[in-house]
Amino acid sequence: MSTGAGQDPGQAAEAADEAHLRAALALAARGLGNTWPNPAVGCVIVRDGAVVGRGWTAPGGRPHAETEALKRAGAAARGATAYVTLEPCCHWGRTPPCADALVAAGVARVVVAMRDPDPRVDGAGLARLRAAGIAVSVGLLEAEARALNAGFLKRLTRNLPLVTLKLATTLDGRIATRTGESQWITGPEARRMAHALRGRHDAVLVGSGTALADDPDLSCRIPGYAAVPTVRVVADARLRLPPTARMLREGQGPVWVATRPGHPDAVLEPLRAAGAEIVEVPEAEGAHGVPLGLDPAALLRALAARGLTRVLAEGGAALGAGLLRAGLVDRLAWFHAPGIIGADGRAALDALPLEVLSAMPRYRRTALALPGADLLSEYASETHSSQIGAD
Amino acid sequence: MSTGAGQDPGQAAEAADEAHLRAALALAARGLGNTWPNPAVGCVIVRDGAVVGRGWTAPGGRPHAETEALKRAGAAARGATAYVTLEPCCHWGRTPPCADALVAAGVARVVVAMRDPDPRVDGAGLARLRAAGIAVSVGLLEAEARALNAGFLKRLTRNLPLVTLKLATTLDGRIATRTGESQWITGPEARRMAHALRGRHDAVLVGSGTALADDPDLSCRIPGYAAVPTVRVVADARLRLPPTARMLREGQGPVWVATRPGHPDAVLEPLRAAGAEIVEVPEAEGAHGVPLGLDPAALLRALAARGLTRVLAEGGAALGAGLLRAGLVDRLAWFHAPGIIGADGRAALDALPLEVLSAMPRYRRTALALPGADLLSEYASETHSSQIGAD
Repeated sequence: MSTGAGQDPGQAAEAADEAHLRAALALAARGLGNTWPNPAVGCVIVRDGAVVGRGWTAPGGRPHAETEALKRAGAAARGATAYVTLEPCCHWGRTPPCADALVAAGVARVVVAMRDPDPRVDGAGLARLRAAGIAVSVGLLEAEARALNAGFLKRLTRNLPLVTLKLATTLDGRIATRTGESQWITGPEARRMAHALRGRHDAVLVGSGTALADDPDLSCRIPGYAAVPTVRVVADARLRLPPTARMLREGQGPVWVATRPGHPDAVLEPLRAAGAEIVEVPEAEGAHGVPLGLDPAALLRALAARGLTRVLAEGGAALGAGLLRAGLVDRLAWFHAPGIIGADGRAALDALPLEVLSAMPRYRRTALALPGADLLSEYASETHSSQIGAD
Repeated sequence: MSTGAGQDPGQAAEAADEAHLRAALALAARGLGNTWPNPAVGCVIVRDGAVVGRGWTAPGGRPHAETEALKRAGAAARGATAYVTLEPCCHWGRTPPCADALVAAGVARVVVAMRDPDPRVDGAGLARLRAAGIAVSVGLLEAEARALNAGFLKRLTRNLPLVTLKLATTLDGRIATRTGESQWITGPEARRMAHALRGRHDAVLVGSGTALADDPDLSCRIPGYAAVPTVRVVADARLRLPPTARMLREGQGPVWVATRPGHPDAVLEPLRAAGAEIVEVPEAEGAHGVPLGLDPAALLRALAARGLTRVLAEGGAALGAGLLRAGLVDRLAWFHAPGIIGADGRAALDALPLEVLSAMPRYRRTALALPGADLLSEYASETHSSQIGAD
């Protein structure tokens, strides 16, 4: 944003507002993956043009961003402007309402990127601020705030988490040779970036085939990145995951095994004893009542009901295709390695299947990165959610 | 390149040399696809720091770059420095030798990016310049010049053209739905860029399956881009291309049908009458002498023998895999559309097949572009030709 000659004071003030709110959005993004079931919020407090306090939602979702920023600002908050990425809360949860804290601190003005649609807030936070004589404006950088809060908003409005489908393939879309050899197609920089992706999501989700074939621990292995350890979820209708699986012995974070209802306790008990939590999910029914594996929407609803707002689906080919088929993939993170396997290699995704090309799931590119020799392109769904963009 | 304070005169002169030679390389690149069987050369003539002449190989390969630049420089060439991307020729071909022309014009110094390995030149051009008292230096930006001349050099040293494999796929590497629907996966900007790629190659090569399925005219449809119309080559062992094919009725440039020897004249005649040139190429033999279609190396040798230096292979899946299998793909130009078809879609490339992942053809990224919603990543082979980079 230019602040050069010829700009009037109103424009300069608007540019300053936008810059401070962008800084608050960047702070908020630090919390992604670590604040569920709460949203990741950022707050910047500015007096006389100087930043006097900064805060973001702490790991676990508490304290809130405003509390953190006010604590740092201290007495300097009096008469200051607070920039907040989401409407301050006004209800007593496990913390006192942030709207009250802003009033008590003597803040003169609050700039909010978007209203919080949570029925316990939904404008009441703004009303409380206004009632105390604080100048409130709402809607600056709202699109950016909606993209950042996409997981929180989707859970709130649709009882589903935001789903990012992550794939790492050759240029021709293969994830392994025909004999199943897959380590390594992408390089160490791409794998590190994939771990950072895990850290920015509440949970990692894989199918049982992937869990059995690769025996991954599914952790975010970047020190300090996943302040709240990423939940590891295995979609495992037939309960094939052994209690000796690496993710139950190694790595950090809970392991949830999503399976169909009705497994006998004798089968469940060894998994529970190894540390797994069992999540029962109905199966999808195909023609003639033949079960088709877990119903993807039911699985995601069960995860949202447990508080997850952002889920990173990492494969395999059946899980990814099932999610795409059901229109449940909001974002793609596709690593392309600069190699070619050919048609006998294993495909990244099973058949959807598509009857016509116009039915193809289409995405909009939101970001591009060049980890080492590989290429990461990120996308947001064009088809079913125009509000959901990049973080 | 910085020319700021603290740089000594020697450094400044070197920086100027590099800048002028880079300009000559950029001029040379204008000729790519239009100069075969000759190399695409660029020349910049500079006197007292001012550019007095610029030239590049004319369409068809003549006049040469030096002649063009000297013509523009006129008397200003006396005492000047000539920057040339390839050693000036010293033999009488259909044009007089460029080394003689530089001597006659009174040029004082010649900066050459690389020696011309053509046995008719191979240092003799440099010797002629030096014998006339001209200061000659060789080797500045040699790697860039080798990349630019890769097609010319490969034909000269290996009797093969440079091969770029162009593919346009979904993110998961599919070129059509299972019913064969493929128009359009990539958008208009990507298709325009693909036409520009045709213009920068001497010829476009497709398999007969693609020719029959899509009935393409294979022309570069960007006005003025292919000054010498791109040759259109169909690999068609069984001679399936009908004389009514669109490429024989529409578009610009010769059509060459590469096929196995021994087809009866009655079959060849209608194709010839429709304008096709027949190129006989031996078939590859599989186990027990079963023919496997045209031998890819023999096909490319036949094209090089006819003068082609740069061939753009556009598919289909069998042709691309055959070229990759034989280690004949120097560069990749891969368009990825932001969509997904799934495993029942048609694969971009047939099985290679790979026995182990370490045998995978690996490439090095050389360029990236964002045509519309699509992504173009370009690569040079890591495996079999370290000298061959991007243009």
